[in-house]
Order: sequence, then C-alpha cells, then structure tokens
Amino acid sequence: MKTVTSNKMFGGVQHVIEHPSQSCTCPMTFGLYLPPGKGPFPVLVFLSGLTCTEQNFVTKAGAQRVAAQLGMAIIAPDTSPRGNGVADDEGYDFGQGAGFYVDATEQPFQPHFQMASYISQELWGIITHNEVLDHQRVGISGHSMGGHGALTLHLKHPEKFRSVSAFSPIVAPSKVPWGRKALAGYLGDNSETWRPYDACELVTERPSHAHILIDQGAKDEFLADQLKPELFQAACATAGQTLKLQMREDYDHSYFFVASFIEEHLHHHHTQLNP
Amino acid sequence: MKTVTSNKMFGGVQHVIEHPSQSCTCPMTFGLYLPPGKGPFPVLVFLSGLTCTEQNFVTKAGAQRVAAQLGMAIIAPDTSPRGNGVADDEGYDFGQGAGFYVDATEQPFQPHFQMASYISQELWGIITHNEVLDHQRVGISGHSMGGHGALTLHLKHPEKFRSVSAFSPIVAPSKVPWGRKALAGYLGDNSETWRPYDACELVTERPSHAHILIDQGAKDEFLADQLKPELFQAACATAGQTLKLQMREDYDHSYFFVASFIEEHLHHHHTQLNP
Repeated sequence: MKTVTSNKMFGGVQHVIEHPSQSCTCPMTFGLYLPPGKGPFPVLVFLSGLTCTEQNFVTKAGAQRVAAQLGMAIIAPDTSPRGNGVADDEGYDFGQGAGFYVDATEQPFQPHFQMASYISQELWGIITHNEVLDHQRVGISGHSMGGHGALTLHLKHPEKFRSVSAFSPIVAPSKVPWGRKALAGYLGDNSETWRPYDACELVTERPSHAHILIDQGAKDEFLADQLKPELFQAACATAGQTLKLQMREDYDHSYFFVASFIEEHLHHHHTQLNP
Repeated sequence: MKTVTSNKMFGGVQHVIEHPSQSCTCPMTFGLYLPPGKGPFPVLVFLSGLTCTEQNFVTKAGAQRVAAQLGMAIIAPDTSPRGNGVADDEGYDFGQGAGFYVDATEQPFQPHFQMASYISQELWGIITHNEVLDHQRVGISGHSMGGHGALTLHLKHPEKFRSVSAFSPIVAPSKVPWGRKALAGYLGDNSETWRPYDACELVTERPSHAHILIDQGAKDEFLADQLKPELFQAACATAGQTLKLQMREDYDHSYFFVASFIEEHLHHHHTQLNP
C-alpha cells in the first residue's frame, strides 16, 4: 500500500492509495476519504463510469462535505487495470478505463481485467482489515457503468454491500450497445455467461432486501439507447424488489448531475446502514 | 458570445461561454453559473491560479450548491489568453495559464496579455449588459495567483468589485519568486510599474471600505516562499484596512482546500453585497 497523495478536506483527509493487485496482477489505485473522528466509519464504495479514473469522483462529486458531516468513509476505485502491459482497445467504451466490473474470460483481457473480483474480494479484504472502517456497514453506488457495477455487485453480494444506489446506471447491459460490446469482448459470445453481470437478470433471480435508489437525468444523452431505466423498473416490479427511481428534469449524464444529488444518496446509504 | 456547454446543476445551469475578446485580441472563455430563479442575481467573479483554466473552479470547488441556495451567479474566467498565436513560456508560472491579472507592456506578451483590462472592463461590461446579473452587487475572489488578482482588482476598483475574499493569495508579488518573474516578464524591470499590481502596496496607498476575508492553509507548500500572508496582514494593520485572515491547520494549496471553505466565502460575499 502506497499513499500517493493526502489532502486535508472538510476536516478529514482525502487519500489516493496505490497497491499491487492480486486480482488484476498490476498496480491499482483508489481514492479513500476518511472523515474527521476515530471511526470505525461506515463505508460507501463509489464506482465511476466509462473513461474515468478514481479522480473523477474524488475531485468533481463534492461528496466529502456530506461524508464529513455523516461520518462516512468513501472508497472510489479506478475503473480498470492500466499500464503498458495491460490490454487495451481504441474505443473509449472498452479496455482501459472501461473494465465494466466483470471478471474477463477472453484473451487478451483475462490476465488483468478481473474487476468483479477486485471489488468484491480484494477491495473487500482491504476494508475488513482496516480497523478504521466498519465492514458491517458498507454500501455501494456508482455512475453509468459504475451504476451497473454497483447494482450487480450488490445483488450478488448483498451481505457485503448492504445498501445500494446508482446514478444513470446501465441496467441491462445485455441489451444495449455499450454492454453488448463489453460483455462479448470480456466474456465471449455466449450470452448465458453475461447473466451474472446484468442487473435486470440478477434482480429477477435474486432480489435483495435493500431499498434501491436510482437517480436518472431526463435529458441524459444516453437515456434511450444505453440506459433504459424502465427495464429495471419493470424487472424490480416483477421480482418484488424495492426501487425508488427518480427522473430528474433537464439533468444530463455529467458529473454536474452526480454532484447535484450526491448528498441525497449519501443520506440514503447512511440511513440504510444505520437502521 | 458562444455557449460551449450548458449543464443543469443544483437547479440552475452551469454554462461555459466563449467570446472574442477585444482586450486580449483572441477568443476568451469563462464559466457562468446561474442559480435557479429570475434574478437579477448578485455576482461573484472567481479568479483561478497558475496552470488553471475556468474548468478548475467550475468542476472542483463545489460552489454551485451554495450559489444556488443564496441565489448568486458565479463567473469563473480563464487565467490567460491562449492559442497558437499567443506568446507562451516553458514555465508553468508564466505565459499561457499564468496571466497574473496584469496588462502587459513587454513584448511578446503585450498584444494578448491584458488580463487586468479584460476582467475590470470587458468582463465588467458583459456583467453590466446582462439583465440577469446585478452589477450593483458584484464581488471578487480567487485562489493563489487568482487571490492576487482579486485583491488588486478590488483595491483598484472598489466601486465595481464591492466585496472581496481570497484563498492562499500571492499578496506581495514584488517580493516573491512567482511574482517577480511574472511582473518583470510582463511589465519590465522597473519595479515602479509593478506597484499597481501588488496588494501590499495598493492597500497601503488606498485601503477600501470592504471587509477582506482570506483563508490560508497552514501546511500550504508555498506559504513561506510565495504567499507570505503576514506581509499583507501588516500592511492592512498600518493602513487601517479591515482584514480577517484565517490560518487553517493541516490544509494545503489544493482545490480540496478551496472546496472546504468556499461555502463560508460565498456567505461572506452575500452578506457584504446585501447589507
């Protein structure tokens, strides 16, 4: 574990940590905000979207102010393995910066692109071994591709990531261009292997006891083609999954949207994790 | 005037505007946040520091949340003229990205580097001609080099920029390496021409009726060599200028510091502009 940067912020400290990852077999980076106080703190894991690093959420979302007030820690991982020895793609929506929170089985991505295991096992292990963090109170959220990651990782590991929310999530990757490209590229053409990474499929098979909160901009440029929240709404209704989907008039897909509603999401997690 | 981007944020809209500048004889860019409501809104002009564009404050400071609550507009200009035909320097602290809010007299910078006139005349004219903005209630603030810009532009134009604050400002550019390099490069070696751009000199000659608010991180890596707030404190005491200087333990020079205290600064301006 190497501390790359540490900056005092809102009475706590925003760290950026680099560590050798066993899952991804390369160095990985994440942001860690620790609020003022001694802990153990409940934790929100926030997963970012396509093209992002840990920096997007750390610098643009304005979450630390609320986290300091609530006494919550925030972990913001990078979105993929990176480096010269790591496979990549020319598109912005595949390869480095677009790990899609899956464990790749296809070459040349399999050796490094193990983001599902990285988040749910390796990063989870880091949380459980840090005495300042309370692994009994860990929630997960994310934006776009990261919203997909948050929903699927919660539904697969509800005992770890006990609360969940998402901004503009990709809820049905099996059915939309971003998802189909990534799932085929990382997992191959047999779409049966995609099911554990599709929130609409997962919630049908194994709804959770959590209250899922989703915010979605109504002017999001990717709403109709890539996001389709109505598919998740229908799947939740069928499965008996509690969902609050809030359509936000005039908001788009940017971090300006995330920043506008992050306070409400942090309060959601805080309430869910402190019943 | 060309709107480059518009993003809904906290119920208002964050715009980025590009326009042909007469002062700088090249296109110039600024951020404009308009809060919800009809206005006319009081305005805060926020000047950024070395290496920044308008994006740093727009994306990192988290000011829009508070501006929306208070009903204030925020204008965040770029820090210099830019482009292929614009003179530059290899250093990060001179040339493009480092206009220092002066009107250059030296070649090759004189044709474009007219940032003092750009802010106090051209941008001022844009404010007065926009009916949504209330030019009777305009304040100015900034960070580092931008704190220098805010202090000097307020002291020279207290009837325009009626309230003032700064984060980690360069208060005595005539006496520190960043300032001496820039002032000599833009204005020549005769330090008499530097006086109108040195806040310590200006406040001695013409203190204002405003209450000046300065926040300064005590762990700022540039504190001892470049910032020297004690010089401004002494000059204000001698001149009878009201100053509140807050040293913030463990904070550094980054935008994490600005974000941590921007709310207090916006309230300061709101109070000063709405007596």
